[in-house]
Amino acid sequence: MLAGMEPHEFRFRVRYAETDQMGVVYHANYLPWMEMGRVELFRSLGHRYKDMEAAGVVMAVVDVNVRYKAPALYDDEIIVRTSLAESNARLCVFHYEIRNAETGKLLAVGSTRHVFLDKQLRPTKAPEPYRSVFEQRREMPVA
Amino acid sequence: MLAGMEPHEFRFRVRYAETDQMGVVYHANYLPWMEMGRVELFRSLGHRYKDMEAAGVVMAVVDVNVRYKAPALYDDEIIVRTSLAESNARLCVFHYEIRNAETGKLLAVGSTRHVFLDKQLRPTKAPEPYRSVFEQRREMPVA
Amino acid sequence: MLAGMEPHEFRFRVRYAETDQMGVVYHANYLPWMEMGRVELFRSLGHRYKDMEAAGVVMAVVDVNVRYKAPALYDDEIIVRTSLAESNARLCVFHYEIRNAETGKLLAVGSTRHVFLDKQLRPTKAPEPYRSVFEQRREMPVA
Amino acid sequence: MLAGMEPHEFRFRVRYAETDQMGVVYHANYLPWMEMGRVELFRSLGHRYKDMEAAGVVMAVVDVNVRYKAPALYDDEIIVRTSLAESNARLCVFHYEIRNAETGKLLAVGSTRHVFLDKQLRPTKAPEPYRSVFEQRREMPVA
Repeated sequence: MLAGMEPHEFRFRVRYAETDQMGVVYHANYLPWMEMGRVELFRSLGHRYKDMEAAGVVMAVVDVNVRYKAPALYDDEIIVRTSLAESNARLCVFHYEIRNAETGKLLAVGSTRHVFLDKQLRPTKAPEPYRSVFEQRREMPVA
Repeated sequence: MLAGMEPHEFRFRVRYAETDQMGVVYHANYLPWMEMGRVELFRSLGHRYKDMEAAGVVMAVVDVNVRYKAPALYDDEIIVRTSLAESNARLCVFHYEIRNAETGKLLAVGSTRHVFLDKQLRPTKAPEPYRSVFEQRREMPVA
Repeated sequence: MLAGMEPHEFRFRVRYAETDQMGVVYHANYLPWMEMGRVELFRSLGHRYKDMEAAGVVMAVVDVNVRYKAPALYDDEIIVRTSLAESNARLCVFHYEIRNAETGKLLAVGSTRHVFLDKQLRPTKAPEPYRSVFEQRREMPVA
Repeated sequence: MLAGMEPHEFRFRVRYAETDQMGVVYHANYLPWMEMGRVELFRSLGHRYKDMEAAGVVMAVVDVNVRYKAPALYDDEIIVRTSLAESNARLCVFHYEIRNAETGKLLAVGSTRHVFLDKQLRPTKAPEPYRSVFEQRREMPVA
């Protein structure tokens, strides 16, 4: 789970609802894909995000960046490759690569920065047993 | 507020995000429009839905029907005409007409049935001061 | 593919983006689930909806009905069970059962009615090689 | 329309559909708000985005950044303040400030970068009569 951690891959298919009249996926719809990516990365480490939320701590998004490289199309199979780039007990940063699963073509890269908040939306620390996932980690350059 | 109650009209413009690759509004996006229609009808009667929810009672949707007559297009100005068709302390039914504001063309008709639920999602009654809005009302035929 | 056709089952997980502040899935978000259900049913019969659309024919939704039985929650695994209830060369009706995959609990039942339209959104017939899927079929009662 | 151009303000109310189970607006839903902001800025300059698209040119999003400062809540009235920060015949950059209309509180700041594409999604120039909107403009620092 440290520096050499492998990114997690999550696959799904583009929904018709996600397209717009330009004939491609509407740009905002990549954000829920990135959300699924980090939740599935978290699950692959043995944790369910809903359990942490039930324990009273949410990972609020404070910063989103997406660079769109090529359009995603209806019914394409998509791979989201998610890695935890930087983290400590109070914040975490995920990086994402979104690719067409069939061709491997890079469609978008993105990142999200999160802080841990309690139910009153005040800053807090990642609770146990999730703390170890977010132990001190420095940002690595993305390829 | 009884049988002769005028429907409430709410206007807004179609968002690009609401279109799909067929070049028209994606059919699911009429449901949030109907939601805005009933919330604005409620506001026109002097009440805010969020206040009722803060008081611990939600109007859960139990049934939705929509008949699509003509496509809504990007940037069209839309009118949602909402009426409270049937209600009592435990349930309510809204009817909706969705029209193009410029041409008056009918785009869709719909209805939603709701029950009042408490925070544990158990059936309850509409609380005061909202109860009077939902006093006994029998369904009227829609034109 | 006639009367005894088995419903098609499609599974996926509820996204955080699909919830609302009531703490359950927002009711409009069942419609894209039903869309995925019918597209996957179509795929299971050897056809891709996008190919029919590329051939110039869309299945426009003209009627939607959903009855909500129990809330779907974030991260639940969902099964959509889709069947083609009625069809001919010009229209088709799908029925849907939406269940919690883990408990089997019925969350919603729904139906959608569609007409085949050409690129100018004028009524047309299902084109070959898709026509046989939609050959004359009378509506069967849903359990 | 040059350096001293006033940002355009657009107001609307948060939809229930836009909230998530954290009890606030889901972060992806700020992107359609920014889309409405730039379309309304364009309209305030005498142009309709749909007309440019009908003329065969789209403004594809290539880069999105959002920094979230405070949560937007259901039924809040929102102001999106949009400015054209940088542009030429081939690209444009918009900046956004999203505020609570009642309190003036800053909820988010964002930017989007766009390139002009033709119907085959190949780079092109902004067509007349829209070209003048996008004449050479250098990026100004945002407060």
